[in-house]
Amino acid sequence: MRAVDLIHAKRQGERLDAEAIRWLIGEYVRDRIPDYQLAAWLMAVFFRGLDGDELAALTDAMLRSGEIFDWSGIEGVKADKHSTGGVGDKVSLALAPLAAACGLIVPMVSGRGLGHTGGTLDKLEAIPGFKVNLTRAQMRRQLARLGVAMMGQTDRFVPADKRLYALRDVTATVESIPLIAASIMSKKLAEGADVLVLDIKVGSGAFMKTTREARLLGRTMIEIGRKMNRRVAALLTDMNQPLGRAVGHSNEVCEAIELLRGGGPPDLKEVTWALTARMLTLAGLARDAAAARERLDAAVASGAALDRFRRMIEWQQGDPRVVDDARRLPWARREAVVPAPATGWLTRIDTRQIGLALAALGGGRRTKEDRIDYGVGIDVERRLGDRAERGEPLFRVHYRKQRDWETARRMLTAAVTISEPRKRPPRLIMEEL
Amino acid sequence: MRAVDLIHAKRQGERLDAEAIRWLIGEYVRDRIPDYQLAAWLMAVFFRGLDGDELAALTDAMLRSGEIFDWSGIEGVKADKHSTGGVGDKVSLALAPLAAACGLIVPMVSGRGLGHTGGTLDKLEAIPGFKVNLTRAQMRRQLARLGVAMMGQTDRFVPADKRLYALRDVTATVESIPLIAASIMSKKLAEGADVLVLDIKVGSGAFMKTTREARLLGRTMIEIGRKMNRRVAALLTDMNQPLGRAVGHSNEVCEAIELLRGGGPPDLKEVTWALTARMLTLAGLARDAAAARERLDAAVASGAALDRFRRMIEWQQGDPRVVDDARRLPWARREAVVPAPATGWLTRIDTRQIGLALAALGGGRRTKEDRIDYGVGIDVERRLGDRAERGEPLFRVHYRKQRDWETARRMLTAAVTISEPRKRPPRLIMEEL
Repeated sequence: MRAVDLIHAKRQGERLDAEAIRWLIGEYVRDRIPDYQLAAWLMAVFFRGLDGDELAALTDAMLRSGEIFDWSGIEGVKADKHSTGGVGDKVSLALAPLAAACGLIVPMVSGRGLGHTGGTLDKLEAIPGFKVNLTRAQMRRQLARLGVAMMGQTDRFVPADKRLYALRDVTATVESIPLIAASIMSKKLAEGADVLVLDIKVGSGAFMKTTREARLLGRTMIEIGRKMNRRVAALLTDMNQPLGRAVGHSNEVCEAIELLRGGGPPDLKEVTWALTARMLTLAGLARDAAAARERLDAAVASGAALDRFRRMIEWQQGDPRVVDDARRLPWARREAVVPAPATGWLTRIDTRQIGLALAALGGGRRTKEDRIDYGVGIDVERRLGDRAERGEPLFRVHYRKQRDWETARRMLTAAVTISEPRKRPPRLIMEEL
Repeated sequence: MRAVDLIHAKRQGERLDAEAIRWLIGEYVRDRIPDYQLAAWLMAVFFRGLDGDELAALTDAMLRSGEIFDWSGIEGVKADKHSTGGVGDKVSLALAPLAAACGLIVPMVSGRGLGHTGGTLDKLEAIPGFKVNLTRAQMRRQLARLGVAMMGQTDRFVPADKRLYALRDVTATVESIPLIAASIMSKKLAEGADVLVLDIKVGSGAFMKTTREARLLGRTMIEIGRKMNRRVAALLTDMNQPLGRAVGHSNEVCEAIELLRGGGPPDLKEVTWALTARMLTLAGLARDAAAARERLDAAVASGAALDRFRRMIEWQQGDPRVVDDARRLPWARREAVVPAPATGWLTRIDTRQIGLALAALGGGRRTKEDRIDYGVGIDVERRLGDRAERGEPLFRVHYRKQRDWETARRMLTAAVTISEPRKRPPRLIMEEL
């Protein structure tokens, strides 16, 4: 086989068989195919796409490039959730212990924030002492005893995806639905999950700007799952404003704890409950959505869900006292308010700008090497469809440096439109695939 | 500027301005943009194309990557011809001295054969002693005194094209009309020609298989020429069978000499006369095609054209006695005939296979490093539309090794279809653009 022939075939819109795709990815990972040939192939894929069989072969080839977790010795259905990323999305923090409290095994491998989106690992690390680098043996013990572990990728975890992503990033081939789908699915399948629920964010703070794109991505991932014998479902959820009130790290951890205690913002609860319920029904632990929701409510009411979170912190060497005393989390001391510049209805939020304002405060990364300040954050005081009188707070900002605050204030003020008449706020859960 | 943004823009079908293209090519040639980014950009160009302004900018950027010849000190119109390559195409050998004998200055930079096509430089090197590596000073002296020089590219001649072509070859981005057009035009404009006539070959022995493609390539090159203030014309000519009778090196040199002496095969004369006449009319040395042809006939009748060829050989250190004594060229001693396997009309020739049969005899290159045997060759004894009786010769083969002959015989027999009824042979000069 020659790489140039496979590039040519894809360029001409031909279907590559599984063997060809396996060879291409395998040789690339072994440094026997140069970056420039893979770059040309990726651009051809951008234009020509991949069909279901090609996608399954690509996902499988990526998956097999590294370590694959096998939890077959542990009783219970292994289930996970994946979000395509947004602003204020702390769903995983609450969902993982909640699902475990309802009987699922949740081996969750998460990522870090980059650009305008936050990352679950960063949020967990706001908890003093919390470790996200677990050995396989630790993870197995913790899953067997506690049913939940939340951790980062090791170097041996789907190395093909790391290589491909780095190349796509510099060759303008990131925005390809099949390549995005294969990247996500290869990582989630390497975790050893049998059940997977996808949260595909749509809107001004999401990578997918339209429901059409989001639906295509969701269907593509479901098809890959089906071809690889996994139970996969997807929800399209709104990201035209931050999810919940908190955007940051310590403040998002607090909000997740409130949720597990039975409180928290209604939108955050709605999305978290919908996703977790879907995991339960897909896993066969509840016969329908209503039964699943009852189980979730019971796990919260009994304190089992919060207890699971507390014990997970302990298992992963964090300070479990943060659950009952938020002051044990790192906090920036200074606080100020971004006021509404006019009176009217909140009709637009540029959610991506809110994520970037957090980064400007020190709570995000511009490059992979940047360190995150867990104590800074933004609390969203008005939501789409709310009324604001001039001077009333739109955002509450926790900051350390005056200059950062001024930058953030400018960005946050510009990120919001207050106008007449009132516009109907977007539907939170848009579609289920 | 960032390469990834230019890849992204082209991927989205946006127009790049001249500055962006100049930057991209300039930085690539200076090794400041890696191969993988240019490979992705080339594949995006394959799908999205380049408009006239982008093409002019690309051609100009490639042109400026190296040495540009400037013959403004030499009186006369500088003119050249370029062929997209075929089998038995020895037009340049006769055209260059013929055009010079008619008053044009011909600074011809040619290439070598690769794959199934022959190369002008290789054919010239069949002449004992002939040197194709001239210094700029030598070339200037020869052009001023003789009006014609035929040579190869130096390393400093359009280095961007060499780099780009090598990359396209391994990334399946060769077959892109705009990239082919920019590659050809950058080299021809670097020669310092004011007038350029393009011979675009179409058919089973050509790179362009359809007139549609050939016309598009021709128009694209004419547009580049127009934007860069050069007079450019293009002829679409048939390559569904070899041009002339000889396919090889020594035998093609002989045929070119016959042509300059007033003989030679009629098809070869027709194409050579049409191209050279167009050079003369574009240069303003003849008011129309008929007047130009008269001039060509006179240059042959007077012996001036052949004399120019003889003197060019002398200037370039070759043995000029080959003109009057073909035995001074290298010849393979053994000769055999490929007979017609049946009686009927010659209705199809796979011309590319004839080029590959020459390579199998040792008269072509599979890789750039292969050495060529100038003495082997194929003489085509029957043309499309001819009648052949079973056993009559279709090809006469000059060979050295029995095994090579057997391979060539098999290939040549398979390359031809003899059937009923007679099919009209293709028009030789198909279109003029």
